[in-house]
Amino acid sequence: MVQDSIRFCLIRTTHPGNIGATARAMKTMGLRRLYLIEPARFPSDEVTSRAANAGDLLDNAVVAPHLSDALKGCELVLGTTARGRKIEWPTIDPESAGRLLVDEARLGRQAAVLFGTERNGLSNTDVEHCHQLIRIPTDESYASLNLAAAVQIIAYEIYKYAAVSSSVPGTRARPKADAKEMQRFYRHLREVLHDLDFVKIQHPPVVLMRKLVRLFNRARPNREELNILRGILTAIQENLKPSRHGRK
Amino acid sequence: MVQDSIRFCLIRTTHPGNIGATARAMKTMGLRRLYLIEPARFPSDEVTSRAANAGDLLDNAVVAPHLSDALKGCELVLGTTARGRKIEWPTIDPESAGRLLVDEARLGRQAAVLFGTERNGLSNTDVEHCHQLIRIPTDESYASLNLAAAVQIIAYEIYKYAAVSSSVPGTRARPKADAKEMQRFYRHLREVLHDLDFVKIQHPPVVLMRKLVRLFNRARPNREELNILRGILTAIQENLKPSRHGRK
Repeated sequence: MVQDSIRFCLIRTTHPGNIGATARAMKTMGLRRLYLIEPARFPSDEVTSRAANAGDLLDNAVVAPHLSDALKGCELVLGTTARGRKIEWPTIDPESAGRLLVDEARLGRQAAVLFGTERNGLSNTDVEHCHQLIRIPTDESYASLNLAAAVQIIAYEIYKYAAVSSSVPGTRARPKADAKEMQRFYRHLREVLHDLDFVKIQHPPVVLMRKLVRLFNRARPNREELNILRGILTAIQENLKPSRHGRK
Repeated sequence: MVQDSIRFCLIRTTHPGNIGATARAMKTMGLRRLYLIEPARFPSDEVTSRAANAGDLLDNAVVAPHLSDALKGCELVLGTTARGRKIEWPTIDPESAGRLLVDEARLGRQAAVLFGTERNGLSNTDVEHCHQLIRIPTDESYASLNLAAAVQIIAYEIYKYAAVSSSVPGTRARPKADAKEMQRFYRHLREVLHDLDFVKIQHPPVVLMRKLVRLFNRARPNREELNILRGILTAIQENLKPSRHGRK
């Protein structure tokens, strides 16, 4: 799996809950390689409980004393940031980052994404390891993205791009009604509206039918749905007062 | 701000921490309107602490006894799901949902996104309020997305698209029927089908209605179209044989 060439590195994480939530966020998107650089508390019960069933990622997590240990063998390193930084650094958005990481992984290269502390993000020294920064867009008045939420967004963009070309199965949809079947339905509907004397001054027949055709065309009924609608029309005809004119 | 026309509705949320984390996730993406339907515990200290500095969203959150109260005035309702569902429902990805929601908001319409319980997601009854479902892509072997993480992804896709261009698209569309009007129409339709004795072995009443709801939700009738449909239903009732039971 292409995701196995991408590692996520949490640097000096303060809250154990964020480590657990990170493991869970990664696993939902098929990512498994978690590195922890100087975590404040690990392992801990809070880490495990927030990880839900992603405990396997914690069991296999690599705890590293220095960032450079965690980056061994990586040919691409991206850092994350939610705000503008004082030091200028080439910056991309999460979507471009997803593409870049997956493309690198497909070329057989190892890549890493760095996440800084809850309070201050990445330090300038951390940033110096990065080829580029990923700037997660946030509202100007409140950029306080939770650490695991940032992980979730990046993981999601990686998965989105990784899943595209490996062909998504997709729901096997029911066949839509074809044009001929729709025409037959509209003829039936027109007949019933006539039987009901449903022609009013506000709705001249042609305009009325056009509006109904537009409505049902928009819904694009499948064959089963069209059969239900036709069945209802037939039931109406069978149950009308005999006094209604124009009926066979 | 366009985000002010989009509300997020958390339904029967069990863990207070998820409500706080949701408020924070929303606020980072400029969303402010939080609705809580039957929350297990709210307000609570855990909610507040996980919200970080997004307490204003909690102060202004609307606690509603029923989902239909929370959807008052909404012309577009989207539900979220991380797995395939037994009942088929039109499904889009988070990116398309972001576009759809922002486009609706720019036309001056109110829209809602529904998030179900931590354990089971949205119930079938919840889904019947939805025009479409948003399927958040996840790894096949582990779809256990945290509730606030799902909120973060959808909020992020909304913000991404809202930030791109703040220009208004052209067509001033007719107002769509809102959730309440749709419910009234479905009640009327159910009544007519009952009058017609339109219940067959192939179509148990609940399944039949669900299929019709799905069809008409997909079409998203505007108010005029809904009036035409309601007019047809009334005309049917007025013209049924007097022998039909169950009629006033």
